Amino acid sequence: QHFSIAAIPGDGIGPEVMKEGLKTLRKIEELHGGIRFSIDVFDWNCHYYLKHHRMMPENGLNTLRDYDVILLGAIGTPEVPDHISVWELILPIRRTFQQYINLRPIKLLKGLESPLRYKNHSDLDFIVVRENTEGEYSNMGGRLHENTPYEMAVQNNVFTRYGTERVINYAYQLAEKRKAKRLTAATKSNGINHSMPFWDEIVKEVSSLHPSVQTDIYHIDALAAYFITRPEQLDVVVGSNLFGDILTDLGAAIVGGLGMAPSGNINPEKAYPSMFEPIHGSAPDIAGKGIANPIAQIWSIGLMMEHLGFEEMNHLVVSSIEEVLIEGMIGTPDLGGKNKTFELGDAIHKKMQEV
Amino acid sequence: QHFSIAAIPGDGIGPEVMKEGLKTLRKIEELHGGIRFSIDVFDWNCHYYLKHHRMMPENGLNTLRDYDVILLGAIGTPEVPDHISVWELILPIRRTFQQYINLRPIKLLKGLESPLRYKNHSDLDFIVVRENTEGEYSNMGGRLHENTPYEMAVQNNVFTRYGTERVINYAYQLAEKRKAKRLTAATKSNGINHSMPFWDEIVKEVSSLHPSVQTDIYHIDALAAYFITRPEQLDVVVGSNLFGDILTDLGAAIVGGLGMAPSGNINPEKAYPSMFEPIHGSAPDIAGKGIANPIAQIWSIGLMMEHLGFEEMNHLVVSSIEEVLIEGMIGTPDLGGKNKTFELGDAIHKKMQEV
Ligand SMILES: CC(C)[C@H](C(=O)O)[C@@H](O)C(=O)O
Ligand SMILES: CC(C)[C@H](C(=O)O)[C@@H](O)C(=O)O
Repeated sequence: QHFSIAAIPGDGIGPEVMKEGLKTLRKIEELHGGIRFSIDVFDWNCHYYLKHHRMMPENGLNTLRDYDVILLGAIGTPEVPDHISVWELILPIRRTFQQYINLRPIKLLKGLESPLRYKNHSDLDFIVVRENTEGEYSNMGGRLHENTPYEMAVQNNVFTRYGTERVINYAYQLAEKRKAKRLTAATKSNGINHSMPFWDEIVKEVSSLHPSVQTDIYHIDALAAYFITRPEQLDVVVGSNLFGDILTDLGAAIVGGLGMAPSGNINPEKAYPSMFEPIHGSAPDIAGKGIANPIAQIWSIGLMMEHLGFEEMNHLVVSSIEEVLIEGMIGTPDLGGKNKTFELGDAIHKKMQEV
Repeated sequence: QHFSIAAIPGDGIGPEVMKEGLKTLRKIEELHGGIRFSIDVFDWNCHYYLKHHRMMPENGLNTLRDYDVILLGAIGTPEVPDHISVWELILPIRRTFQQYINLRPIKLLKGLESPLRYKNHSDLDFIVVRENTEGEYSNMGGRLHENTPYEMAVQNNVFTRYGTERVINYAYQLAEKRKAKRLTAATKSNGINHSMPFWDEIVKEVSSLHPSVQTDIYHIDALAAYFITRPEQLDVVVGSNLFGDILTDLGAAIVGGLGMAPSGNINPEKAYPSMFEPIHGSAPDIAGKGIANPIAQIWSIGLMMEHLGFEEMNHLVVSSIEEVLIEGMIGTPDLGGKNKTFELGDAIHKKMQEV
């Protein structure tokens, strides 16, 4: 089978980890005789913006549309305001291609220790389904009475039945396939009293169509605490765009850091390309040193393989990463080691050959 | 000095912990000859709602206005929707009395262990200043196309310059008085692109008036992770209504649980009564058993004393709680003990006499 991939390395450590990711793709081709990737690399990033006053060419989205999948490194530099790099590159991709599921496994890899005392691998293995196209990240809103003491900003959170149903439905379908069959929905309907009661209603409606799944609805504040106190009881967590964002960075922290956390921006219907990216950002503070952890990027490719129908390739990627971590010989500084990005990447790719 | 207190025990474990809190007040009178409290108890809670179809009498807010302070236990029962109990009791009090600061110390008490491996007391001692009157908790918004596939809900987040400046200014004043003089502001201006860039602008404006304070602005997702990975670097954290809410439950979790976390809803000008309450809710699951942890309620009274100008009384309360925890003889089930609420309360009050 042949797959076309658009790779956007991005800024900062993005290109550094992407380099390892591209090696992962080559290794997969090598190990699985039936898979071929054709990869095009795009230099759309903040550098591009500083030159062209836009994050990607005018026909950028149309260019991407023809690929099977998109791989992203990380976007952002101190010179370009975040809301430009995000709203002119990442969010248009997520939205145009109806990548309405942001799938984020929270799993403590073997060989790693959780910062949570008394919690181990079997306690930390769940998945967050984040809404990825609407909600709190709407660009509807504005300001009034600028430059006066009466200035104000209004931001509209927009929740549609269409957008909410489809993500909750996906989360239930995922929960049905899992052993624990438990779904935890994040809400804040006690304080946020239009959008969140609506969200809760839809959770309840969709839950009645999936009687085999046990449903709990928690306020986001309590749920964040729950991630610390009882993560072993979590199975599938579903949250709005903002709540899913917060919970997954928190989730990444309890399983050993952002350097390890992959994500898939998925269009389940496969009508458009899906996009796979590390949760971490471009980390300007360590960029250029060649010491970024490439695991999140490599694991993202595992998620991509699963999306393309090769679940066993995701297992191979994850277990190879785990083997390297268990051996503990090679690690980037965030893992307490002294190795370079490419050394950790090479160790994982060598392991893929062996396991 | 004489202070009038309106006590609202509320629902569930609220009245159970309030009972201990009232004993704390009596103990303070006993130990400090110059302080007298007159306390009126109000039965405004969900039970009251089920009888009268409102959470408090029509003139309830006017009644409260004349007190020096308000003490709250906890509000909420499964029979009354959260948004009613909250929007008809807690939020009107916070707003009518311009309690625009929600002050929440995150401090690992001596005698307790953090769920975070490798973190101890000196690592966990900071304070969150939460905006408490506007922002994401606005009741502006509504629905369109109800009961059709095109249904949608819109929620307006409203940030005023007035409301934002005053909370950030308070946070800077607090930071100036502390040793580390560091302020960390929570934002999400990369995803939420009207209200949060406005918030950031005001942080930067106010920061320029407080050059002795070091300012960092973090996206809420990264900051939540930061609470796990580097809490020792936090000093004063300032966040919007929602972000402050999430961060303080998370903060309570990393210092040993919600049973321990106090809060003050403060009107700094003292033009209106301030309100002190535990962060925890009414905990219907353990209500009626007399096993709730009263520490959050008792510590809230410490915060109240500080607000009234008796900082040494707050120290007395906190150090008495710590002494009891260090001894480890008496503890409620959430602390791993087998004692009742009143036994832990009594132990703390006895200790107040001794230290
Ligand atoms: C009851 C609820 C609305 C409240 C809030 O979110 O403000 C609570 O969680 C708190 O933190 O005081
Ligand atoms: C860059 C930013 C807008 C983005 C988000 O919040 O979606 C990032 O934090 C993520 O989680 O992918």
